[in-house]
Amino acid sequence: MSKSNKKIVVIGGGTGVFTVLSGLRKYFNNLTAIVTMADDGGSAGILREEFGILPPGDIRRALIALSDSDNKILSQLFSYRFEEGSGLSGHSFGNLMITALERVTGSFEKAIREAGKILSVQGRVLPVTLKKTTLVAELEDGTIVEGETNIDLPKHGGRARIKKVRLKPEVSLNPEAREVILEADAIIIGPGDLYTSLVPNLLVKGVKEALRKSRGKKIYFVNLMTKQGETAGFRASDFVRTIEQYLGKRILDYAVANKTRPVAMRFRPYAQEQSDFVEPDLENFRGVTPVAAGLIRKQGFVRHDPEKLAKLVQMLI
Amino acid sequence: MSKSNKKIVVIGGGTGVFTVLSGLRKYFNNLTAIVTMADDGGSAGILREEFGILPPGDIRRALIALSDSDNKILSQLFSYRFEEGSGLSGHSFGNLMITALERVTGSFEKAIREAGKILSVQGRVLPVTLKKTTLVAELEDGTIVEGETNIDLPKHGGRARIKKVRLKPEVSLNPEAREVILEADAIIIGPGDLYTSLVPNLLVKGVKEALRKSRGKKIYFVNLMTKQGETAGFRASDFVRTIEQYLGKRILDYAVANKTRPVAMRFRPYAQEQSDFVEPDLENFRGVTPVAAGLIRKQGFVRHDPEKLAKLVQMLI
Repeated sequence: MSKSNKKIVVIGGGTGVFTVLSGLRKYFNNLTAIVTMADDGGSAGILREEFGILPPGDIRRALIALSDSDNKILSQLFSYRFEEGSGLSGHSFGNLMITALERVTGSFEKAIREAGKILSVQGRVLPVTLKKTTLVAELEDGTIVEGETNIDLPKHGGRARIKKVRLKPEVSLNPEAREVILEADAIIIGPGDLYTSLVPNLLVKGVKEALRKSRGKKIYFVNLMTKQGETAGFRASDFVRTIEQYLGKRILDYAVANKTRPVAMRFRPYAQEQSDFVEPDLENFRGVTPVAAGLIRKQGFVRHDPEKLAKLVQMLI
Repeated sequence: MSKSNKKIVVIGGGTGVFTVLSGLRKYFNNLTAIVTMADDGGSAGILREEFGILPPGDIRRALIALSDSDNKILSQLFSYRFEEGSGLSGHSFGNLMITALERVTGSFEKAIREAGKILSVQGRVLPVTLKKTTLVAELEDGTIVEGETNIDLPKHGGRARIKKVRLKPEVSLNPEAREVILEADAIIIGPGDLYTSLVPNLLVKGVKEALRKSRGKKIYFVNLMTKQGETAGFRASDFVRTIEQYLGKRILDYAVANKTRPVAMRFRPYAQEQSDFVEPDLENFRGVTPVAAGLIRKQGFVRHDPEKLAKLVQMLI
């Protein structure tokens, strides 16, 4: 089967980008991932702090998803996280490689390009912005939470909902990312954590405008499960409404929700973290074509099936 | 010019291995480096201590010397040493990669093989032993100094000469290294720090026997400069005598000393570290064919010229 030459852009962060890219790469040969740069936790957070570089975590995951190397060890190596060593424990090898490449090449963009060469990446991975910024959330009770990790881990869970998020300081869209958005045949947003992986991209100055200008189909993938502290109690329409709150109305072409509910047993791991199944209330979607499909993997955690995501994208564009 | 298919083995450690391999690779396409595993300082020492792996430093240098990758960035990356970061500062990226590969593949040998693939290494790099060991020196005044770093850095300098060195515990020759020694057309020892890079290889159980059994020509390259605390006051014949003390007599075929003395100005950087030019007293060589040649680089530090070394090897075998 020959792959489509259509230009596909994926916007997101976290593990969702990995899922969607690893599905799409089988059907499309012109893929670009644009990933959020507001990560400030864990290994990436330490490197960001101590080396002053952009956080490499989401970049790393996207590179692995697009790696076409026959050498399986190479992607295992890139994903490896040190478990020992006084100074190394917790660091992802891939993050260290991007950091070292930044120093060797002199720029973060070149570092990503070189990491891509080493991993034989088919496609491009671009940071949404080339400037450092921090995600700030205002809760409904007025509390201000700074830093993606603090928002992501539901430390404020059970207290109050997120009212809105912003970037501090404001940063502008990476010009190369702008170009690929403008030329794209399709732009896929998500799946991914709503406030910590998706919205941070939409907050970057110039993203909204580029998306509005682009003729590519804009497809948003609603999450499968809610997340305590971020999207507790959300139905599919709440996700869509939030995306539109930051993106503007009538920009999205399709909002895709999962319609099949897995057996009860598969929800057990989610009980403790108070994560619930997202109801596909398509009747409440406004100003966007609702799409409902069975998108969940056959077994294990309730996650998107990369193959099903990819086939749906193929159908929609 | 087509390369020779002769099987060449280089035994050593430290920067000398890099020099000789980077010269030889232009003329020979069957190269194996066998390197010492008694390193316990710096980045390699920390990894050895905290991860329980063999020290990767000398392996790393040999891999870089043999890398045939078009990607220059890759060898720069592999040689890169972190300068910032609370836990990372001082670590060589290449050492971290070998350490992570050891964890991913489950063995140090596989890690070296995989690192070799990533770097497109032409040739093999083998640790002289697969067991951990420590270098111990007994000085003429009876003092015992443990650990390659403590012997290497002349902390005991000015106090007493090294009487003899040994490994604690005794370790055996890597079987793969034994095989290549037995099949070699030529075995090159040095150049390299006498007691800390060369002799530690000869102390490994089975090395002497393998060298005696092998029909390959054994060529020893005498150092250009003495080293305080290790070889202060040594003339070329003292180097040869010491090698034979550990290797046995009549095993070496050739001992190569440099015969050209560079201009005085080039010795200036060596004054502070009390490092002197090694006199080529070929008349004192016993039971080995002395070879004298101009082997020094045209400019800069008093170091071997890789090209001149390689051409001499070509001539001798």
